[in-house]
Amino acid sequence: MALRKLGKTLLDNLLEGTGVEVGGDRPWDITVNNPRFYRRALRGSLGIGEAYIDGDWDCQALDVMFQRVLGARKWRSPLLRFARALKVLQARLTNLQTRPRSMAVAEEHYNLDHRMYALLLGPWNQYTCCFFDGTSDLEQAEINKLEMICDKLEIGRGERVLDIGCGWGGFAKYAASTRGCEVTGISLSSEQIDYARSYTAGLPVTIRQIDYRDLPQSGLPAFDKIVIVGMIEHVGYKNYRKLMDVVHQMLKPDGLFLLHTIGNRDETAVVDPWIEKYIFRNSMVPAMGQLTRAAEENLVIEDWENYGHYYVPTLQAWYERFNANWSQIQALDTERPFDERFRRMWNYYLLSCKAAFEVEELHLWHLVMTRRGSGRGVYDRVKHYSNRPRDAEAAPLQIRATRR
Amino acid sequence: MALRKLGKTLLDNLLEGTGVEVGGDRPWDITVNNPRFYRRALRGSLGIGEAYIDGDWDCQALDVMFQRVLGARKWRSPLLRFARALKVLQARLTNLQTRPRSMAVAEEHYNLDHRMYALLLGPWNQYTCCFFDGTSDLEQAEINKLEMICDKLEIGRGERVLDIGCGWGGFAKYAASTRGCEVTGISLSSEQIDYARSYTAGLPVTIRQIDYRDLPQSGLPAFDKIVIVGMIEHVGYKNYRKLMDVVHQMLKPDGLFLLHTIGNRDETAVVDPWIEKYIFRNSMVPAMGQLTRAAEENLVIEDWENYGHYYVPTLQAWYERFNANWSQIQALDTERPFDERFRRMWNYYLLSCKAAFEVEELHLWHLVMTRRGSGRGVYDRVKHYSNRPRDAEAAPLQIRATRR
Repeated sequence: MALRKLGKTLLDNLLEGTGVEVGGDRPWDITVNNPRFYRRALRGSLGIGEAYIDGDWDCQALDVMFQRVLGARKWRSPLLRFARALKVLQARLTNLQTRPRSMAVAEEHYNLDHRMYALLLGPWNQYTCCFFDGTSDLEQAEINKLEMICDKLEIGRGERVLDIGCGWGGFAKYAASTRGCEVTGISLSSEQIDYARSYTAGLPVTIRQIDYRDLPQSGLPAFDKIVIVGMIEHVGYKNYRKLMDVVHQMLKPDGLFLLHTIGNRDETAVVDPWIEKYIFRNSMVPAMGQLTRAAEENLVIEDWENYGHYYVPTLQAWYERFNANWSQIQALDTERPFDERFRRMWNYYLLSCKAAFEVEELHLWHLVMTRRGSGRGVYDRVKHYSNRPRDAEAAPLQIRATRR
Repeated sequence: MALRKLGKTLLDNLLEGTGVEVGGDRPWDITVNNPRFYRRALRGSLGIGEAYIDGDWDCQALDVMFQRVLGARKWRSPLLRFARALKVLQARLTNLQTRPRSMAVAEEHYNLDHRMYALLLGPWNQYTCCFFDGTSDLEQAEINKLEMICDKLEIGRGERVLDIGCGWGGFAKYAASTRGCEVTGISLSSEQIDYARSYTAGLPVTIRQIDYRDLPQSGLPAFDKIVIVGMIEHVGYKNYRKLMDVVHQMLKPDGLFLLHTIGNRDETAVVDPWIEKYIFRNSMVPAMGQLTRAAEENLVIEDWENYGHYYVPTLQAWYERFNANWSQIQALDTERPFDERFRRMWNYYLLSCKAAFEVEELHLWHLVMTRRGSGRGVYDRVKHYSNRPRDAEAAPLQIRATRR
């Protein structure tokens, strides 16, 4: 009972001034279904999230609740920080993203049956922020993002493009079919590789299982363009310099490199402990300073944009598709059961992240870099917009992805 | 004689592998006019520059020579670093940009007779990078830059704009006359203030002598837009956080802030010692990490562009005008004589800086920031280019500045 009381105190502290109440009746209030929730809350973010998965508490508008709590920066309270301190210590003392550890997230998260992701994501398999500019359609938002990346990289016919962390091959397929380039995609997830090979069949796309650290020894010649979309979040700050050095080595002297990544307001070494345990093992979100320190020796950052607010409708779209298709997901015949705990876990994940983007704790960054001494002059972004439709209706892109 | 020999060794070390020779006959080779140059070279960058002013040595293509030496990163050699270490120590231990020290550069550099600057700069008095995109004309490049800033800030009719470090009022005049906004410019240089008031007469422009640190106590209400163009280079890294806090306080919740600054490849606390002594007292060029650390608590960096290569033609244009107009400058009746030493000093300054931009040791950055929680959503840069002419000929801007 003493622990329960302490847990209540922690929760009171966490919710103070946020307008969120335990037992209130507004959509963002918290309903406690099982009093053990208070005890579990003592484990901070991890315990609160685990209790949610198990149904110990509920909230009708989880996203609004998170928006209020994260916006008040209560998640940084000393009690919650304590639980996190041990993990931070581990991150500082060891390398959380060694080769074997890098395989862990590939196996646990990205090896999930693709059919589940197909019922969550849009047809281009874009499991990163989609650009909802002038559209509310997920596929158009996927295309907007892919178009933007191809435009910024100035990809030309016949150019060789390296995609580090290629996922299910969405970018490779899009770039190869709309720009006539050759794409080499690398990934660690065998599930993703199998899928991507089939998904890009018939196109000049090669998908290989290579750790980015092995690229310089891979025998691959330097590329015209390199792209990293939603992969550096698994790299860990201790390896950023190595990654940038690999990019520098694999890029032609006058090439372009685009980095698409979630961005962190604060410099840290770890991710939220619940996200760490249930969603992305050994991941962390880079802060600006961590990226600049790693990049500046050999690369020049020419262009840096923040699209964080596009992640709000992106996560909302995934959340809606996930729940609309839930009975189909549940019925999938897979090794891992897609049960009620899985549903709650994903809803918690999608809506808490949505709130973090809403309150600008997280950003979504596009960085375009050149090699130092590239001789390219000013990176002229004006032309990257010259061919873009000003709004989706004016000149809609007619490309449609086809599911495998 | 022993000192001379040591100086020769230092020079040999500095020039090794750069293709620059002492006594050679290519345009970038060095001709020694007075052997005391070797002794003076022992004082590193400062001594070498002072010897140049005094005519101890010459070089036909000073810019190419610097490009070769800076490109090889020889300026960072241990011998040269030693001379610099004392200054860095001073910067770390004290605040080089206190209020009295901030007045020094205003008095020495910016209080130089405006007639001299008029014979150097374009008609908009832009003493910062001009954007030579699609033009080789200095005035058009000034306009391109000013247009870009107004566009990025989305300045609307009747809006209130704060210009921190307003120089001779070029931006204030341009923005007020083309956008119909009200501009409040602040500066420390009494010469600049007098000039700017007259230059912007008849427009809704107010020029005041205020230290940026005093803005929150100035009684001025919050502004729609804030701009800082070429002023943070005088602020010093210890004061960046203060400056960002002042911007946060003086900006409306949904306002926009644009920072136009020279950018440094390396994090440092001082500027080159020769530049420090002869051109910009108590100045330093910010690195990315120094800016992000200062900004991120209260502001969100939405957009970051590098236009460093536009500084090459900008400095070249100033250099050409300076020398073409030299007899007029020399004939100016001023307290400070514009003599041969002054001419050599300015040529050395303009051409060494030009080379630093050429080899990407220095950048030119545009950062657009919002207040955290502004509710503005994605900063949509596409529209900032929608009205821009694609090249100067296609739709030249008809605005012309008039000299006082």
